[in-house]
Amino acid sequence: MIDFKLYVIIDRKSSKGRDPAYVAQEAIEGGADIIQLRDKESSAGEILKAGRAILDLTRRKKIPLIINDRVDIAVAVGADGVHLGQDDLPIGTARSMIGEGKIIGLSTHSVSQALEAQENGADYIGVGPVFSTPTKPDYKAVGVDLIREVRDRIRIPFVVIGGIDGSNIDEVLAAGARRVAVVRAVCGAEDVRGAAKRLKERLNKI
Amino acid sequence: MIDFKLYVIIDRKSSKGRDPAYVAQEAIEGGADIIQLRDKESSAGEILKAGRAILDLTRRKKIPLIINDRVDIAVAVGADGVHLGQDDLPIGTARSMIGEGKIIGLSTHSVSQALEAQENGADYIGVGPVFSTPTKPDYKAVGVDLIREVRDRIRIPFVVIGGIDGSNIDEVLAAGARRVAVVRAVCGAEDVRGAAKRLKERLNKI
Repeated sequence: MIDFKLYVIIDRKSSKGRDPAYVAQEAIEGGADIIQLRDKESSAGEILKAGRAILDLTRRKKIPLIINDRVDIAVAVGADGVHLGQDDLPIGTARSMIGEGKIIGLSTHSVSQALEAQENGADYIGVGPVFSTPTKPDYKAVGVDLIREVRDRIRIPFVVIGGIDGSNIDEVLAAGARRVAVVRAVCGAEDVRGAAKRLKERLNKI
Repeated sequence: MIDFKLYVIIDRKSSKGRDPAYVAQEAIEGGADIIQLRDKESSAGEILKAGRAILDLTRRKKIPLIINDRVDIAVAVGADGVHLGQDDLPIGTARSMIGEGKIIGLSTHSVSQALEAQENGADYIGVGPVFSTPTKPDYKAVGVDLIREVRDRIRIPFVVIGGIDGSNIDEVLAAGARRVAVVRAVCGAEDVRGAAKRLKERLNKI
Protein backbone atom coordinates (compact mmCIF):
# COMPACT_ATOMS: atom_id res chain seq x y z
CA MET A 1 0.00 0.00 0.00
CA ILE A 2 1.23 3.45 -0.93
CA ASP A 3 1.99 5.87 1.87
CA PHE A 4 3.38 9.36 2.23
CA LYS A 5 3.09 12.47 4.37
CA LEU A 6 3.63 15.51 2.14
CA TYR A 7 1.92 15.34 -1.26
CA VAL A 8 2.97 18.23 -3.51
CA ILE A 9 0.95 19.12 -6.58
CA ILE A 10 2.94 20.91 -9.25
CA ASP A 11 0.25 23.01 -10.89
CA ARG A 12 1.28 24.96 -13.97
CA LYS A 13 -1.08 27.83 -13.23
CA SER A 14 0.07 28.26 -9.62
CA SER A 15 3.82 28.02 -10.29
CA LYS A 16 4.49 31.67 -11.16
CA GLY A 17 5.67 30.75 -14.65
CA ARG A 18 8.53 28.59 -13.37
CA ASP A 19 9.49 25.35 -15.09
CA PRO A 20 7.52 22.42 -13.58
CA ALA A 21 10.66 20.27 -13.31
CA TYR A 22 12.44 23.04 -11.41
CA VAL A 23 9.53 23.45 -9.00
CA ALA A 24 9.32 19.67 -8.55
CA GLN A 25 13.06 19.46 -7.86
CA GLU A 26 12.80 22.14 -5.18
CA ALA A 27 9.73 20.49 -3.61
CA ILE A 28 11.51 17.13 -3.54
CA GLU A 29 14.59 18.69 -1.94
CA GLY A 30 12.27 20.22 0.66
CA GLY A 31 10.83 16.82 1.53
CA ALA A 32 7.87 16.02 -0.77
CA ASP A 33 7.06 12.31 -0.53
CA ILE A 34 4.94 12.18 -3.67
CA ILE A 35 4.56 14.54 -6.62
CA GLN A 36 1.53 15.17 -8.78
CA LEU A 37 1.81 17.00 -12.09
CA ARG A 38 -1.34 18.97 -12.81
CA ASP A 39 -1.57 21.04 -15.97
CA LYS A 40 -4.94 21.91 -17.42
CA GLU A 41 -3.52 24.39 -19.90
CA SER A 42 -0.65 22.89 -21.87
CA SER A 43 -0.82 20.51 -24.81
CA ALA A 44 -0.44 16.78 -24.20
CA GLY A 45 2.99 16.94 -25.82
CA GLU A 46 4.16 19.61 -23.38
CA ILE A 47 2.77 17.77 -20.35
CA LEU A 48 4.47 14.58 -21.57
CA LYS A 49 7.77 16.42 -21.78
CA ALA A 50 7.41 17.96 -18.30
CA GLY A 51 6.26 14.60 -16.91
CA ARG A 52 9.31 12.81 -18.26
CA ALA A 53 11.62 15.43 -16.81
CA ILE A 54 9.96 15.16 -13.39
CA LEU A 55 9.99 11.35 -13.54
CA ASP A 56 13.79 11.49 -13.80
CA LEU A 57 13.79 13.40 -10.51
CA THR A 58 11.22 11.30 -8.64
CA ARG A 59 12.89 8.02 -9.68
CA ARG A 60 16.17 9.24 -8.27
CA LYS A 61 14.48 9.85 -4.91
CA LYS A 62 12.31 6.70 -5.20
CA ILE A 63 9.09 8.67 -4.72
CA PRO A 64 5.97 8.28 -6.88
CA LEU A 65 4.94 10.61 -9.70
CA ILE A 66 1.22 10.94 -10.29
CA ILE A 67 -0.31 12.60 -13.37
CA ASN A 68 -3.55 14.52 -12.93
CA ASP A 69 -6.62 13.55 -14.97
CA ARG A 70 -4.95 12.29 -18.19
CA VAL A 71 -4.58 8.52 -18.07
CA ASP A 72 -3.05 8.53 -21.55
CA ILE A 73 -0.31 10.94 -20.52
CA ALA A 74 0.33 8.95 -17.31
CA VAL A 75 0.87 5.84 -19.45
CA ALA A 76 2.99 7.72 -21.99
CA VAL A 77 5.19 9.21 -19.24
CA GLY A 78 5.51 5.85 -17.51
CA ALA A 79 4.36 7.58 -14.32
CA ASP A 80 3.50 5.70 -11.15
CA GLY A 81 -0.15 6.61 -11.26
CA VAL A 82 -2.98 8.93 -12.12
CA HIS A 83 -5.17 11.18 -10.01
CA LEU A 84 -8.81 11.48 -11.04
CA GLY A 85 -11.61 13.86 -10.13
CA GLN A 86 -15.28 13.02 -9.80
CA ASP A 87 -15.82 14.25 -13.39
CA ASP A 88 -12.87 12.40 -14.92
CA LEU A 89 -12.77 8.87 -16.35
CA PRO A 90 -14.12 6.17 -14.01
CA ILE A 91 -11.57 4.28 -11.87
CA GLY A 92 -12.25 0.95 -13.60
CA THR A 93 -11.64 2.43 -17.04
CA ALA A 94 -8.44 4.08 -15.86
CA ARG A 95 -7.30 0.86 -14.17
CA SER A 96 -7.67 -1.18 -17.34
CA MET A 97 -5.48 1.33 -19.20
CA ILE A 98 -2.82 2.03 -16.59
CA GLY A 99 -2.52 -1.46 -15.10
CA GLU A 100 -2.92 -3.18 -11.75
CA GLY A 101 0.49 -2.19 -10.41
CA LYS A 102 -0.10 1.53 -10.74
CA ILE A 103 -1.59 4.02 -8.30
CA ILE A 104 -5.03 5.53 -8.81
CA GLY A 105 -6.11 8.38 -6.57
CA LEU A 106 -9.53 10.01 -6.52
CA SER A 107 -10.69 13.41 -5.28
CA THR A 108 -13.64 13.08 -2.93
CA HIS A 109 -15.79 15.71 -1.30
CA SER A 110 -18.02 13.69 1.04
CA VAL A 111 -18.03 10.46 3.04
CA SER A 112 -20.20 8.75 0.45
CA GLN A 113 -17.76 9.64 -2.34
CA ALA A 114 -14.87 8.43 -0.18
CA LEU A 115 -16.57 5.09 0.49
CA GLU A 116 -17.43 4.70 -3.19
CA ALA A 117 -13.83 5.41 -4.22
CA GLN A 118 -12.56 2.79 -1.76
CA GLU A 119 -15.14 0.31 -3.08
CA ASN A 120 -14.10 1.02 -6.69
CA GLY A 121 -10.45 0.28 -6.05
CA ALA A 122 -8.83 3.67 -5.48
CA ASP A 123 -5.38 3.33 -3.94
CA TYR A 124 -5.79 6.56 -2.02
CA ILE A 125 -8.27 9.40 -1.88
CA GLY A 126 -8.04 13.13 -1.61
CA VAL A 127 -10.48 14.72 0.83
CA GLY A 128 -11.37 18.37 0.49
CA PRO A 129 -11.25 21.18 -0.12
CA VAL A 130 -10.89 21.49 3.64
CA PHE A 131 -10.60 25.27 3.38
CA SER A 132 -11.69 27.49 0.51
CA THR A 133 -8.93 27.87 -2.06
CA PRO A 134 -8.35 30.00 -5.13
CA THR A 135 -7.12 26.83 -6.93
CA LYS A 136 -10.65 25.35 -6.93
CA PRO A 137 -13.00 28.33 -6.83
CA ASP A 138 -16.06 26.24 -7.75
CA TYR A 139 -15.81 23.96 -4.72
CA LYS A 140 -17.33 24.67 -1.34
CA ALA A 141 -14.99 24.04 1.58
CA VAL A 142 -15.90 20.79 3.34
CA GLY A 143 -14.37 21.78 6.70
CA VAL A 144 -12.32 19.72 9.14
CA ASP A 145 -15.26 17.65 10.42
CA LEU A 146 -15.18 15.58 7.24
CA ILE A 147 -11.59 14.62 8.09
CA ARG A 148 -12.75 13.05 11.38
CA GLU A 149 -15.51 11.14 9.65
CA VAL A 150 -13.29 9.86 6.84
CA ARG A 151 -10.60 8.85 9.34
CA ASP A 152 -13.13 6.66 11.16
CA ARG A 153 -14.68 5.05 8.11
CA ILE A 154 -12.03 4.65 5.37
CA ARG A 155 -9.29 2.01 5.31
CA ILE A 156 -7.26 3.28 2.33
CA PRO A 157 -4.87 6.22 2.78
CA PHE A 158 -6.54 9.60 2.59
CA VAL A 159 -4.80 12.90 1.99
CA VAL A 160 -6.42 16.18 2.93
CA ILE A 161 -6.31 19.08 0.51
CA GLY A 162 -7.61 22.57 -0.05
CA GLY A 163 -6.11 25.81 1.18
CA ILE A 164 -3.78 24.10 3.66
CA ASP A 165 -0.61 25.96 4.63
CA GLY A 166 1.55 26.70 7.66
CA SER A 167 -1.20 28.80 9.22
CA ASN A 168 -3.81 26.05 9.45
CA ILE A 169 -2.00 22.71 9.20
CA ASP A 170 -2.28 22.19 12.97
CA GLU A 171 -6.05 22.30 12.64
CA VAL A 172 -6.20 19.49 10.04
CA LEU A 173 -3.70 17.38 11.96
CA ALA A 174 -5.76 17.82 15.12
CA ALA A 175 -8.77 16.52 13.21
CA GLY A 176 -6.94 13.30 12.36
CA ALA A 177 -5.20 13.98 9.07
CA ARG A 178 -1.82 12.29 8.64
CA ARG A 179 -1.19 13.24 4.99
CA VAL A 180 -1.43 16.71 3.51
CA ALA A 181 -1.60 17.76 -0.13
CA VAL A 182 -0.66 21.27 -1.13
CA VAL A 183 -0.67 23.27 -4.34
CA ARG A 184 -0.29 27.00 -3.74
CA ALA A 185 1.47 26.67 -0.35
CA VAL A 186 4.46 25.03 -2.03
CA CYS A 187 4.52 25.52 -5.80
CA GLY A 188 3.22 29.07 -5.40
CA ALA A 189 5.84 29.98 -2.78
CA GLU A 190 8.83 32.14 -3.63
CA ASP A 191 11.00 29.66 -1.71
CA VAL A 192 9.50 26.34 -2.84
CA ARG A 193 12.07 24.23 -1.02
CA GLY A 194 11.72 26.11 2.26
CA ALA A 195 7.91 25.97 2.11
CA ALA A 196 7.98 22.19 1.58
CA LYS A 197 10.58 21.77 4.29
CA ARG A 198 8.55 23.63 6.93
CA LEU A 199 5.37 21.63 6.17
CA LYS A 200 7.31 18.37 6.21
CA GLU A 201 8.88 19.21 9.56
CA ARG A 202 5.42 19.76 11.01
CA LEU A 203 4.18 16.47 9.52
CA ASN A 204 7.20 14.65 10.89
CA LYS A 205 6.17 15.61 14.42
CA ILE A 206 2.97 13.54 14.32
CA MET B 1 -7.57 1.49 -45.51
CA ILE B 2 -10.06 3.98 -44.16
CA ASP B 3 -11.81 6.24 -46.66
CA PHE B 4 -14.49 8.90 -46.60
CA LYS B 5 -15.57 12.10 -48.32
CA LEU B 6 -17.22 14.33 -45.71
CA TYR B 7 -15.51 14.44 -42.32
CA VAL B 8 -17.57 16.32 -39.75
CA ILE B 9 -16.01 17.56 -36.52
CA ILE B 10 -18.47 18.02 -33.69
CA ASP B 11 -16.83 20.79 -31.74
CA ARG B 12 -18.47 21.75 -28.46
CA LYS B 13 -17.51 25.41 -28.76
CA SER B 14 -18.84 25.80 -32.31
CA SER B 15 -22.14 23.96 -31.77
CA LYS B 16 -24.21 26.89 -30.46
CA GLY B 17 -24.83 25.12 -27.16
CA ARG B 18 -26.59 22.17 -28.78
CA ASP B 19 -26.11 18.62 -27.52
CA PRO B 20 -23.15 16.97 -29.34
CA ALA B 21 -25.16 13.79 -29.98
CA TYR B 22 -27.97 15.81 -31.56
CA VAL B 23 -25.54 17.68 -33.80
CA ALA B 24 -23.82 14.41 -34.73
CA GLN B 25 -27.16 12.78 -35.56
CA GLU B 26 -28.10 15.66 -37.87
CA ALA B 27 -24.67 15.61 -39.54
CA ILE B 28 -24.93 11.86 -40.11
CA GLU B 29 -28.41 12.24 -41.57
CA GLY B 30 -26.99 14.88 -43.87
CA GLY B 31 -24.32 12.51 -45.14
CA ALA B 32 -21.23 12.70 -42.88
CA ASP B 33 -18.99 9.70 -43.58
CA ILE B 34 -16.93 10.03 -40.43
CA ILE B 35 -17.44 11.94 -37.17
CA GLN B 36 -14.88 13.46 -34.87
CA LEU B 37 -15.78 14.58 -31.36
CA ARG B 38 -13.69 17.55 -30.29
CA ASP B 39 -14.23 19.10 -26.90
CA LYS B 40 -11.45 21.07 -25.24
CA GLU B 41 -13.70 22.42 -22.51
CA SER B 42 -15.65 19.65 -20.82
CA SER B 43 -14.44 17.17 -18.22
CA ALA B 44 -13.31 13.71 -19.32
CA GLY B 45 -16.47 12.26 -17.80
CA GLU B 46 -18.68 14.52 -19.89
CA ILE B 47 -16.75 13.81 -23.09
CA LEU B 48 -16.98 10.09 -22.34
CA LYS B 49 -20.75 10.38 -22.00
CA ALA B 50 -21.13 12.36 -25.23
CA GLY B 51 -18.75 9.98 -27.01
CA ARG B 52 -20.77 6.94 -25.99
CA ALA B 53 -24.00 8.57 -27.15
CA ILE B 54 -22.45 9.43 -30.52
CA LEU B 55 -20.92 5.95 -30.88
CA ASP B 56 -24.45 4.51 -30.73
CA LEU B 57 -25.32 6.66 -33.74
CA THR B 58 -22.17 6.04 -35.78
CA ARG B 59 -22.31 2.27 -35.23
CA ARG B 60 -25.86 2.21 -36.55
CA LYS B 61 -24.66 3.89 -39.76
CA LYS B 62 -21.39 1.91 -39.82
CA ILE B 63 -19.26 5.04 -39.93
CA PRO B 64 -16.20 5.68 -37.76
CA LEU B 65 -16.11 7.83 -34.63
CA ILE B 66 -12.83 9.56 -33.91
CA ILE B 67 -12.04 11.28 -30.59
CA ASN B 68 -9.86 14.39 -30.68
CA ASP B 69 -6.62 14.49 -28.71
CA ARG B 70 -7.53 12.25 -25.72
CA VAL B 71 -6.34 8.71 -26.35
CA ASP B 72 -7.66 7.65 -22.94
CA ILE B 73 -11.17 8.86 -23.72
CA ALA B 74 -11.04 7.21 -27.17
CA VAL B 75 -10.20 3.90 -25.47
CA ALA B 76 -12.85 4.42 -22.78
CA VAL B 77 -15.53 5.23 -25.37
CA GLY B 78 -14.50 2.27 -27.54
CA ALA B 79 -14.24 4.73 -30.43
CA ASP B 80 -12.78 3.79 -33.79
CA GLY B 81 -9.81 6.07 -33.46
CA VAL B 82 -8.14 9.21 -32.23
CA HIS B 83 -7.10 12.41 -33.96
CA LEU B 84 -3.87 14.02 -32.80
CA GLY B 85 -2.31 17.42 -33.32
CA GLN B 86 1.38 18.19 -33.66
CA ASP B 87 1.48 19.04 -29.93
CA ASP B 88 -0.43 15.98 -28.72
CA LEU B 89 0.95 12.57 -27.77
CA PRO B 90 3.22 10.96 -30.42
CA ILE B 91 1.59 8.50 -32.85
CA GLY B 92 3.61 5.54 -31.56
CA THR B 93 2.54 6.18 -27.96
CA ALA B 94 -1.09 6.53 -29.01
CA ARG B 95 -0.87 3.37 -31.13
CA SER B 96 0.37 1.27 -28.24
CA MET B 97 -2.59 2.41 -26.13
CA ILE B 98 -5.38 2.32 -28.69
CA GLY B 99 -4.28 -0.78 -30.63
CA GLU B 100 -3.32 -1.73 -34.17
CA GLY B 101 -6.86 -2.06 -35.47
CA LYS B 102 -7.81 1.52 -34.64
CA ILE B 103 -7.52 4.69 -36.70
CA ILE B 104 -4.99 7.39 -35.90
CA GLY B 105 -5.20 10.71 -37.72
CA LEU B 106 -2.75 13.55 -37.46
CA SER B 107 -3.09 17.26 -38.22
CA THR B 108 -0.32 18.46 -40.52
CA HIS B 109 0.51 21.93 -41.74
CA SER B 110 3.32 21.30 -44.25
CA VAL B 111 4.59 18.65 -46.66
CA SER B 112 7.33 17.64 -44.24
CA GLN B 113 4.81 17.10 -41.42
CA ALA B 114 2.60 15.12 -43.82
CA LEU B 115 5.50 12.87 -44.86
CA GLU B 116 6.53 12.39 -41.25
CA ALA B 117 2.98 11.43 -40.22
CA GLN B 118 2.82 8.86 -43.04
CA GLU B 119 6.22 7.50 -42.01
CA ASN B 120 5.09 7.25 -38.35
CA GLY B 121 2.03 5.18 -39.19
CA ALA B 122 -0.84 7.67 -39.34
CA ASP B 123 -3.91 6.16 -41.01
CA TYR B 124 -4.88 9.51 -42.48
CA ILE B 125 -3.77 13.09 -42.18
CA GLY B 126 -5.51 16.42 -41.97
CA VAL B 127 -3.97 19.17 -44.12
CA GLY B 128 -4.63 22.79 -43.30
CA PRO B 129 -5.87 25.19 -42.32
CA VAL B 130 -6.42 25.82 -46.04
CA PHE B 131 -8.20 29.08 -45.30
CA SER B 132 -8.03 31.15 -42.14
CA THR B 133 -10.62 30.04 -39.63
CA PRO B 134 -11.93 31.33 -36.30
CA THR B 135 -11.73 27.73 -34.97
CA LYS B 136 -7.90 27.80 -35.07
CA PRO B 137 -6.98 31.47 -34.71
CA ASP B 138 -3.31 30.71 -33.97
CA TYR B 139 -2.69 28.95 -37.27
CA LYS B 140 -1.67 30.65 -40.48
CA ALA B 141 -3.65 29.52 -43.52
CA VAL B 142 -1.53 27.18 -45.68
CA GLY B 143 -3.42 27.87 -48.91
CA VAL B 144 -4.53 25.52 -51.68
CA ASP B 145 -1.05 25.00 -53.12
CA LEU B 146 -0.21 22.68 -50.23
CA ILE B 147 -3.13 20.46 -51.32
CA ARG B 148 -1.51 19.95 -54.73
CA GLU B 149 1.83 19.11 -53.19
CA VAL B 150 0.39 16.68 -50.63
CA ARG B 151 -1.73 15.00 -53.32
CA ASP B 152 1.42 14.29 -55.34
CA ARG B 153 3.58 13.06 -52.47
CA ILE B 154 1.39 11.27 -49.88
CA ARG B 155 -0.05 7.76 -50.26
CA ILE B 156 -2.34 7.69 -47.17
CA PRO B 157 -5.72 9.45 -47.30
CA PHE B 158 -5.56 13.16 -46.63
CA VAL B 159 -8.47 15.37 -45.67
CA VAL B 160 -8.32 19.12 -46.13
CA ILE B 161 -9.55 21.36 -43.36
CA GLY B 162 -9.76 24.98 -42.31
CA GLY B 163 -12.47 27.46 -43.16
CA ILE B 164 -13.99 25.29 -45.92
CA ASP B 165 -17.65 25.82 -46.71
CA GLY B 166 -20.01 26.01 -49.69
CA SER B 167 -18.39 29.23 -50.88
CA ASN B 168 -14.89 27.82 -51.38
CA ILE B 169 -15.18 24.04 -51.62
CA ASP B 170 -14.81 24.18 -55.43
CA GLU B 171 -11.41 25.76 -54.97
CA VAL B 172 -10.08 22.93 -52.75
CA LEU B 173 -11.55 20.25 -54.99
CA ALA B 174 -9.94 21.91 -58.02
CA ALA B 175 -6.60 21.72 -56.19
CA GLY B 176 -6.94 17.95 -55.85
CA ALA B 177 -8.72 17.43 -52.52
CA ARG B 178 -11.11 14.46 -52.41
CA ARG B 179 -11.98 14.59 -48.71
CA VAL B 180 -13.12 17.65 -46.77
CA ALA B 181 -13.29 18.19 -43.02
CA VAL B 182 -15.54 20.86 -41.60
CA VAL B 183 -16.27 22.28 -38.16
CA ARG B 184 -18.15 25.56 -38.29
CA ALA B 185 -19.71 24.98 -41.73
CA VAL B 186 -21.73 22.06 -40.37
CA CYS B 187 -21.89 22.00 -36.57
CA GLY B 188 -22.15 25.79 -36.48
CA ALA B 189 -24.97 25.89 -39.02
CA GLU B 190 -28.56 26.52 -37.97
CA ASP B 191 -29.58 23.65 -40.27
CA VAL B 192 -26.84 21.09 -39.55
CA ARG B 193 -28.37 18.38 -41.70
CA GLY B 194 -28.92 20.66 -44.69
CA ALA B 195 -25.38 22.05 -44.45
CA ALA B 196 -23.89 18.55 -44.41
CA LYS B 197 -26.17 17.47 -47.25
CA ARG B 198 -25.11 20.29 -49.57
CA LEU B 199 -21.40 19.69 -48.96
CA LYS B 200 -21.84 15.95 -49.48
CA GLU B 201 -23.70 16.50 -52.75
CA ARG B 202 -20.81 18.61 -53.99
CA LEU B 203 -18.31 15.93 -52.92
CA ASN B 204 -20.37 13.22 -54.61
CA LYS B 205 -19.91 14.98 -57.95
CA ILE B 206 -16.16 14.39 -58.04
